[in-house]
Amino acid sequence: MKKIEIILLLLFAGIVVTAQEIDFPANTKPASTNIVGAEYPRIDNQRRAYFKINAKDAQSITVSLGNIALSKDEAGTWTGVTEPLDPGFHYYTLKIDGVDVADPASESFFGASRAMSGIEVLEEGVDFYDIKNVPHGEVRSVWYFAASEKEYRHAYIYTPPGYDQNQDERYPVLYLQHGMGEDRRAWSNQGHANFILDNLIAEGKAKPMIIVMEDGGIAAGFKSKKREQDKNFWDGFGDVMIKDLIPMVDANYRTLADRENRAMAGLSLGGTQTYQITGANLDKFGSIGIFSAPFGFPGIENGYNGLFANSDEFNKQVKVLYISMGSKEGARSGRSVHEELDKAGIRNVYYEAPGTAHEFQTWRKSLYGFAQLLFRD
Amino acid sequence: MKKIEIILLLLFAGIVVTAQEIDFPANTKPASTNIVGAEYPRIDNQRRAYFKINAKDAQSITVSLGNIALSKDEAGTWTGVTEPLDPGFHYYTLKIDGVDVADPASESFFGASRAMSGIEVLEEGVDFYDIKNVPHGEVRSVWYFAASEKEYRHAYIYTPPGYDQNQDERYPVLYLQHGMGEDRRAWSNQGHANFILDNLIAEGKAKPMIIVMEDGGIAAGFKSKKREQDKNFWDGFGDVMIKDLIPMVDANYRTLADRENRAMAGLSLGGTQTYQITGANLDKFGSIGIFSAPFGFPGIENGYNGLFANSDEFNKQVKVLYISMGSKEGARSGRSVHEELDKAGIRNVYYEAPGTAHEFQTWRKSLYGFAQLLFRD
Repeated sequence: MKKIEIILLLLFAGIVVTAQEIDFPANTKPASTNIVGAEYPRIDNQRRAYFKINAKDAQSITVSLGNIALSKDEAGTWTGVTEPLDPGFHYYTLKIDGVDVADPASESFFGASRAMSGIEVLEEGVDFYDIKNVPHGEVRSVWYFAASEKEYRHAYIYTPPGYDQNQDERYPVLYLQHGMGEDRRAWSNQGHANFILDNLIAEGKAKPMIIVMEDGGIAAGFKSKKREQDKNFWDGFGDVMIKDLIPMVDANYRTLADRENRAMAGLSLGGTQTYQITGANLDKFGSIGIFSAPFGFPGIENGYNGLFANSDEFNKQVKVLYISMGSKEGARSGRSVHEELDKAGIRNVYYEAPGTAHEFQTWRKSLYGFAQLLFRD
Repeated sequence: MKKIEIILLLLFAGIVVTAQEIDFPANTKPASTNIVGAEYPRIDNQRRAYFKINAKDAQSITVSLGNIALSKDEAGTWTGVTEPLDPGFHYYTLKIDGVDVADPASESFFGASRAMSGIEVLEEGVDFYDIKNVPHGEVRSVWYFAASEKEYRHAYIYTPPGYDQNQDERYPVLYLQHGMGEDRRAWSNQGHANFILDNLIAEGKAKPMIIVMEDGGIAAGFKSKKREQDKNFWDGFGDVMIKDLIPMVDANYRTLADRENRAMAGLSLGGTQTYQITGANLDKFGSIGIFSAPFGFPGIENGYNGLFANSDEFNKQVKVLYISMGSKEGARSGRSVHEELDKAGIRNVYYEAPGTAHEFQTWRKSLYGFAQLLFRD
C-alpha cells in the first residue's frame, strides 16, 4: 500500500496523527473511559482529571466535573484540572460557548437521557469491578415484543460463565434496574455489573445467576401512551415487567422460575421502581435491593400491601432486603429507611459506601454486597 | 410523590420539559436514531434533515451533513435544513464555534475513531434491515483473552434465533469486519446486521449462521505493540483472528468448524483485512465478501498465494467471492476489481448498490446479498 493511500485512509477515519507529546502532567494516565488512543482526559494519583482540548475559535469551555473553567493559550489550546474526584465512574459534559456537549475524547455512556461522556477514576486497592483473568459471562442484547405496550423492547441479559456449557443447570435471576435518564446499558457499561459477577462467581462468593437489565420506565414512558395514563411516566414499567419481561425470560433462558430464585434491585429511580414492583408483586420476588433511592419508600404502615406492619410475616417471605446509599448522600436515600425498618422489626441489611455520593461507585459496591447474599439456602 | 420531588427528579435527569411544539416542518418525523424523546433532527419525505438547537451564546453552528450552516434567531435558536440525503445511516457531527462535537440529540455511534452522531434516513419501500415480528437472534457481548496480543479483547457475536433451543444443531460462521475508525459495534448498531439476518432467516433466504464482529485492527493497533511492528497498524488483526478469535469461537459456540462453513467479509478497511487474512489463510475460509474496499486487492498475478493466476483451482476452493460497492463510489472500490476478476476467469458475484456512496446503506445491501449465497450445498 502506498504512503499517500495510508495517509488518505487515516484522514478519512478522522485519526489525527500528532508528534509524540512529552509534556504530560506528572503521574497521570489517560482515563480508561477515553476512546482508544486519546491521551486526555488524564487522571493523576490524587484523582484529579486533566483536560486538554484544541478549540481556537471557542470563547469559553467548562467541564461539568466541578464546573471548572479551562484556560486558553495563544495557540488555541484549552487546559485545566479538576479538584480531586470521588473514585469510580462519573458522567460529565463540556460546555462550549454555552452548549452542553459530550467530550469527543470520551466513550459514550447513556445517562441524563442522552449520550454523555464518562470518566473512570481509580480507587486504590479496589478492583472487584475490573476485568480479570477469570471465566467471563456474556451480556446479551435481546429484543422482544412486549404485548402490554405493543412495542419492541430491548434488554441486556447477563448469562454467567458456563451458561452455554452446563445445559442441565438452571439459574436464579436478578432483575437489575438503572436510574432515571439511563437505560439497559448503564449497569454493564457504567457499572461493570458483568465483571462484578464474573469475579464474585470465580471466587465462590456469589451463586451463578442471570441478570436482566431492561430499558425500564424511561423508554416505556416516552414510547407508549403510559406517560399520559399513569401518575408518573415510569409507572408503566411494572406492567411490562410482570406481563412481558419475566415471562419472556423464563421462556427463553434456563431460569429457576419461582419467587425464591427471583430478585429485583435498582439504583435511584430503579430503587423506586423496585419498591413499587416488588411491593405489588411479592408473590414473584423473594429478595429486594434498594440502592440510593430517595423516593418511593412506601412507609411502614401501608408498605407491601400491609406486610410491613406485620414484620414476622414479611421476614418470613422476604429472604433479603438490602438498603444502601453513599455516605455523601442524604439520609433519606437509605440510612433513615434502614432505621425505620429496624425500628419496625423488619429484617434488613444496610450498607453505606464510604466517601461516595449518588454515583456508580456506590452502586457497584452495593451490587457487590447484595449479590453475595442472594439465593442462599 | 410530591410535585416538587418529581420536578427535582426530572431536573436531575437532565430532562427538559417544554411546552408541546406545534410548528414542526411539514411532513417531518424525528429520526429513529435520535435519543428517546428528541424531536430534532427530523426528516421530511424528500429525505432532508431539519435541525433545531438552542445555543444563545454560540457564534456559529454547522452540521457535517453537507456542511450546512444553521441560522440563529433572536431567541438564540439555531435552525437549518440539509439537501436531500442518501437513504440509510449517516454519521455526522456539529461544529460549534469551530469544535467538532456529537449532537446531544442523537444516539452515539462509534465511527471515525470516536463517538459520533448518526442519522437514519428512510428508503421508501426498503425494510429488510428493520426490526420485524419474526424470531430474533441475540447480539452477545463477549470478552476474551487474546494470548497473541496479551490483552483482553471484545467481540459482538450474533447467534441466530433458536440457537439456545436447538442444542443439537451446529452453525456456520461469518466473520464480519467494520471499517476504519469503527469497532465491534458498527455492524449491529449502524448496520443492523442482526435484523438483516433475522429477517432473511425467517423468510428462509439465508441459512441460520453465527456472525462474529470483533474490534479489529484499530484496537489491536493502538493497544499493543503491533502498531510499531507491522507495516500498517491494522495488520496485527490477522494474528488475533487466526490464533485467538477463531479458536475461541470454535471452542465456545456450536460451530461447524471447517473452511466450507467459515466465511469472512468486511467493509472498507474490513474488506482490505478480508483480502489480507483470507489470502494468507485460504485453508480456513471457504467464502469471501469484499464490500467497498478501495485498498488491498492483491492483483491477479500474486493474489491468494498465486491462486488467482490459477483460476480453476481458485474457483474450486472458493465457494463465494462477492465484490460490492455503492454506485457513487469510485470504480476501484469494487467494479474494476470485479472486471479484472472476470477477465482472469475467477468466478465472482458483483453487486452495486444503486445511488449510495461509501456508507452503511451500501453495506447493508451487500450483506443482504452476500448472506443469501453463503453455506449453500
